[in-house]
Amino acid sequence: MPYPDKFTGFQVHGPETWDQFHKNEFDPKPFGDYDVDIKIEACGICGSDLHTITGGWGEQKFPLAVGHEIIGTALRVGPKVTLIQPGQRVGVGAQSWSCLDCRQCRNDNETYCRQQLDTYGAVWPDSGVVSQGGYSSHVRTHEHWVFPIPEALPTTAAAPMLCAGLTAYSPLVRNGCGPGKKVGIVGLGGIGHFGLLFAKALGAEVWVISRTRAKEGDAMAMGADGFLATAEEGWNQEHVMTFDLIVNTASSFEGFDLDAYLSLLDVHAKWVSVGLPEGDGIKIRNQTFLSNGCFFGSSHLGSRRETLEMLELAAEKGVKPWVEEVKISEGNLAEALKKLEANKVKYRFCLTGYEEQFGA
Amino acid sequence: MPYPDKFTGFQVHGPETWDQFHKNEFDPKPFGDYDVDIKIEACGICGSDLHTITGGWGEQKFPLAVGHEIIGTALRVGPKVTLIQPGQRVGVGAQSWSCLDCRQCRNDNETYCRQQLDTYGAVWPDSGVVSQGGYSSHVRTHEHWVFPIPEALPTTAAAPMLCAGLTAYSPLVRNGCGPGKKVGIVGLGGIGHFGLLFAKALGAEVWVISRTRAKEGDAMAMGADGFLATAEEGWNQEHVMTFDLIVNTASSFEGFDLDAYLSLLDVHAKWVSVGLPEGDGIKIRNQTFLSNGCFFGSSHLGSRRETLEMLELAAEKGVKPWVEEVKISEGNLAEALKKLEANKVKYRFCLTGYEEQFGA
Repeated sequence: MPYPDKFTGFQVHGPETWDQFHKNEFDPKPFGDYDVDIKIEACGICGSDLHTITGGWGEQKFPLAVGHEIIGTALRVGPKVTLIQPGQRVGVGAQSWSCLDCRQCRNDNETYCRQQLDTYGAVWPDSGVVSQGGYSSHVRTHEHWVFPIPEALPTTAAAPMLCAGLTAYSPLVRNGCGPGKKVGIVGLGGIGHFGLLFAKALGAEVWVISRTRAKEGDAMAMGADGFLATAEEGWNQEHVMTFDLIVNTASSFEGFDLDAYLSLLDVHAKWVSVGLPEGDGIKIRNQTFLSNGCFFGSSHLGSRRETLEMLELAAEKGVKPWVEEVKISEGNLAEALKKLEANKVKYRFCLTGYEEQFGA
Repeated sequence: MPYPDKFTGFQVHGPETWDQFHKNEFDPKPFGDYDVDIKIEACGICGSDLHTITGGWGEQKFPLAVGHEIIGTALRVGPKVTLIQPGQRVGVGAQSWSCLDCRQCRNDNETYCRQQLDTYGAVWPDSGVVSQGGYSSHVRTHEHWVFPIPEALPTTAAAPMLCAGLTAYSPLVRNGCGPGKKVGIVGLGGIGHFGLLFAKALGAEVWVISRTRAKEGDAMAMGADGFLATAEEGWNQEHVMTFDLIVNTASSFEGFDLDAYLSLLDVHAKWVSVGLPEGDGIKIRNQTFLSNGCFFGSSHLGSRRETLEMLELAAEKGVKPWVEEVKISEGNLAEALKKLEANKVKYRFCLTGYEEQFGA
């Protein structure tokens, strides 16, 4: 194993060949005083991975190994690291750096730092190295974005929490989800199913809102209190102005009747979109927001503090995401990403079998 | 004077002849136990009046006397009225009824009651009478929507506060405007100038955001702390993520670079639109909201409690709106509404001279 000089990962060479993964060596960024080197043991497959390698979110730096729901073991830590000890089971999510000095960073909003860097595809300012994700043997990450994993959480359950889980959890806790609140989750995919699980763990009444009733059984099995199918005539009428918060995880605005969705919200309540549909968006009119003074917004990941609290909550409440394991390999990656593209995942893939590919 | 059997008002007969005002008699709704009859002395001219009579907001019930920034004297009150005494100087704004029983009504959100009725153009459920506004001799209004006017406020200053003022005031106080906050007001028209005046009265740092610098002098004279002209290259750069709240009073989305505006907001801060542009809206993408997790919303008027607090604040701080007086008459109404259509009002018209038209 080449560690620590070279890491190895399954890279894509460009959007035209996004379903071909090549096992390449690459140079990590220089080891810094606050860095932690992690031997990867598992990594969730996220919709972002697909949007990135297919070029759907615009130009990217190739060759690129994606993956930002990483679990592994801390191997060595930089001389100034205080948050992580070697040998710990740790996780890394979708963000790997911010200045830690600006107003946002000093207020648990490091995800909104103007200098924030993504775990993969970002250019490290000092070295020019392009960050590589968790479809790899190792990852080198500043300790602030390395999270100890509670013992009670299985590795394949913890991994997808680090992007999908946090993406759903942060807008819930930032917008008052808890006992006595009625929360809607639009779309039951990878993020949506975490929205449902975490909103329940936080004590809210949770309704899943989907186009058809195809996923109603799954939603109820996950603990939903109710299910609304938007393809049904008058689906929103009984629930107008009764929701305290809606988290929208839909990955497309196709056929989206935003007025009908927003009518569900109580006065000044919020609609928070966490999916990032490709394409040029949806039209809104001020009038749409008038009958209840509601708000439309978006949310980006969550802070270190929230990540740690989410993992503790998941451990304490026994939150069980629905995860399919996939042994990492060129062929299995291609197959899994194509299934993700076709929305055929229930509800998250997690890559395992790293030792077979990268050694013990 | 025909009071109390008939009222008289300047009505428009249809959108094709919106600039022709006809002095007609009309029947008020039956006098109710909680009603207050008011002899009108002044009425502001609101953008809503124009949108309504021209048909820009869709079909309306004609003949119609508009006007919902009404000041007058309470003449008689119903047997159950406790909030108003005959002889008091009082005001009526844009809303005249709600159920006062639903969750919204019981929580200072009567403006979001699903049964709310507008001061003009609404059909009273019991009698079928179409409500008529303040371009009239009298108005009959439930006491909840009749507001005593503090002695220190001149009639022509108080009148435009009842719609334009409240429309700006409510989103300010509901979203934390106060000392230490940086507030943006987009558009310096009738509502915008109230936004500036009230945000200053509430103690915030206030910036006016306009297309050009044409109104900069007025803005500074009204007390603005700064002025941004969106036609200037890079106008937003120095202010990215520094605003705690932006109230958008623009009456059109034409040429609107929403991304640039929203970039001004601090993390999770809000953009509240209070104008209601005609037309089919503006496209948004979730991505636009991602860099700061900001929110886009709208706001509708404000509650009775807020109205009374606003009037007290205006009296206490000596808030002085810029108001041009117009003597009510067929010709002057036509002229004033055409000026309003051409954006030639600085910054609010107020109709006076009611005695000459309707008697003492």
